[in-house]
Amino acid sequence: MKPEGTLLLKRHEVAELLTLEECISAVEQVFKLQGEGKTAAPGVLGIHAHDGGFHIKAGLLDLSRPYFVAKANANFPQNMQRFGLPLIQGIIVLCDGENGYPLAVMDSTEITILRTGAATAVAAKYLARPDSKVATICGCGNQGRVSLRALMKVRPLDRAYAFDNDGAQAEHFARELSSELGIEVTVAGDLAEAVRKSDICVTCTPSKRYFLNREYIPPGMFVAAVGADNEEKQELDPRLMQKNKIIVDLLEQCATIGDLHHALECGLITREDIHAELGEIVAGRKTGRESAEEIIVFDSTGMALQDVVATVAVYERALSNNSTARMNFFA
Amino acid sequence: MKPEGTLLLKRHEVAELLTLEECISAVEQVFKLQGEGKTAAPGVLGIHAHDGGFHIKAGLLDLSRPYFVAKANANFPQNMQRFGLPLIQGIIVLCDGENGYPLAVMDSTEITILRTGAATAVAAKYLARPDSKVATICGCGNQGRVSLRALMKVRPLDRAYAFDNDGAQAEHFARELSSELGIEVTVAGDLAEAVRKSDICVTCTPSKRYFLNREYIPPGMFVAAVGADNEEKQELDPRLMQKNKIIVDLLEQCATIGDLHHALECGLITREDIHAELGEIVAGRKTGRESAEEIIVFDSTGMALQDVVATVAVYERALSNNSTARMNFFA
Repeated sequence: MKPEGTLLLKRHEVAELLTLEECISAVEQVFKLQGEGKTAAPGVLGIHAHDGGFHIKAGLLDLSRPYFVAKANANFPQNMQRFGLPLIQGIIVLCDGENGYPLAVMDSTEITILRTGAATAVAAKYLARPDSKVATICGCGNQGRVSLRALMKVRPLDRAYAFDNDGAQAEHFARELSSELGIEVTVAGDLAEAVRKSDICVTCTPSKRYFLNREYIPPGMFVAAVGADNEEKQELDPRLMQKNKIIVDLLEQCATIGDLHHALECGLITREDIHAELGEIVAGRKTGRESAEEIIVFDSTGMALQDVVATVAVYERALSNNSTARMNFFA
Repeated sequence: MKPEGTLLLKRHEVAELLTLEECISAVEQVFKLQGEGKTAAPGVLGIHAHDGGFHIKAGLLDLSRPYFVAKANANFPQNMQRFGLPLIQGIIVLCDGENGYPLAVMDSTEITILRTGAATAVAAKYLARPDSKVATICGCGNQGRVSLRALMKVRPLDRAYAFDNDGAQAEHFARELSSELGIEVTVAGDLAEAVRKSDICVTCTPSKRYFLNREYIPPGMFVAAVGADNEEKQELDPRLMQKNKIIVDLLEQCATIGDLHHALECGLITREDIHAELGEIVAGRKTGRESAEEIIVFDSTGMALQDVVATVAVYERALSNNSTARMNFFA
């Protein structure tokens, strides 16, 4: 059967085709496959530009059939001020893994946000206390929003604190998410105090200097470090990695570009101190949370395979949607 | 200035927008920039699939402005027999190098063929005898066609031999190119004899075992090895690399996936025996041909930067073309 052209999907179409629930379930599935050793190594490459950079993540997965996904994301921190453009922009190409045909070309923004939030939810499902009620979200952008929404799917939260250097952003976040989620979301005036009252803390800021001190963290907390995705970014006090249970999405990647790399670099811990990759826990090969008191830190740098499953979920849903634009690039 | 959407270009549009002359000149320019040390290192990554594989080549170049290009090519050798699909299919994403906006998404097939043929022409311009009259083309597919067309732009050929394991392909090639180029193109019944009568020999086959023996090669010949782009492919007798002048497009890449790697692997030569990268010769930093007798071998594996310049040439030409489709992926 010859393909009938390449599906073209805009951001709002991707958003309509992929629910957070489905994305969490797809991402959990891929962590399980990875933990079972059933996935091939994906590829990552980065190219520096003058004011930012480009990252490519690519991977192949056998799902309902073999699929290949390559995501090219641009990351330009000054984009909004300089050009009125988003910080992150990108395009995903999805190909048939059996014959290479490009099945779809789509906006990557929505998938990047959702699959990252989904990983936080999967991690919380296995690593946060089941009775977690309160979360602090550091960084009130798109990723902060999806993090809180995603946590709500896996833990019975009734309260959240919103923290951001930009107070207006935090206010806006608190108002919007309170009303959307029906829980009490308030601005965290004092981060230390908010964190001390929380069960879960997610960091998703562009910070280059840590702001989450070890002293803030109460016993039993689950911390997800989501923001750091290059060697210059840092959110967590590296001492937070000492003596606590550290879980990573991909060990090598976290050791290079995640928050983990600062703790390794200053010699506070070694790779042997890492408890597990999240996939090993989802697959049941390593233990997750073992007590209500232990502090667990998850370092999330984003796996290419998360992009693959999320993209495939969008594509398979779009197939039934006849209104979607198609193009034959090879005509 | 906000971008107005992403240009979408089909294969026939790319072909109409990029002439071989322009592509040769763009590719010569990028070899010069590279030889002058003015280009940043591009990135390459490969993902194996069951019946083939995917390759991504990405790079950033400061041309009239900074541009980033990522090319994702699928290579499935049995595609035609199994699915009626081409061996190589792919998509290129071109982004603004200053803010990451995706300026264009286009078919990669035409660009891959043309930029490869263009590299052969640039190499021939610096490395083939100026009075070269006869060429043998091994492999009568698309790459063979563009190779002969490209050589015609830089050398006064009046005769060519077409060689292919598939005799019908060779016949078809000879008929088509004779009439198109107005020179005598005949099928090479005996490869050794055809090569002996030639000044230039280009190999662009999918062969996994060498067929161009050292004994066939006459003094003064320029040989371009174009087909090998993974470690399993091989076209040249590795002994051909001994004592002759070896030029590569990218040393590390040729040492890994080019025909060169077989000669290195069996210990016939070392990296020190490589005379130059083509860019160094185009930039005037190393000598090209020094006598009418020397045999020069060019190992071409394809640089990401060739894709960048060729893509940019297509894009800048397309900007003036109002009929081109645009899409706002971020809407």
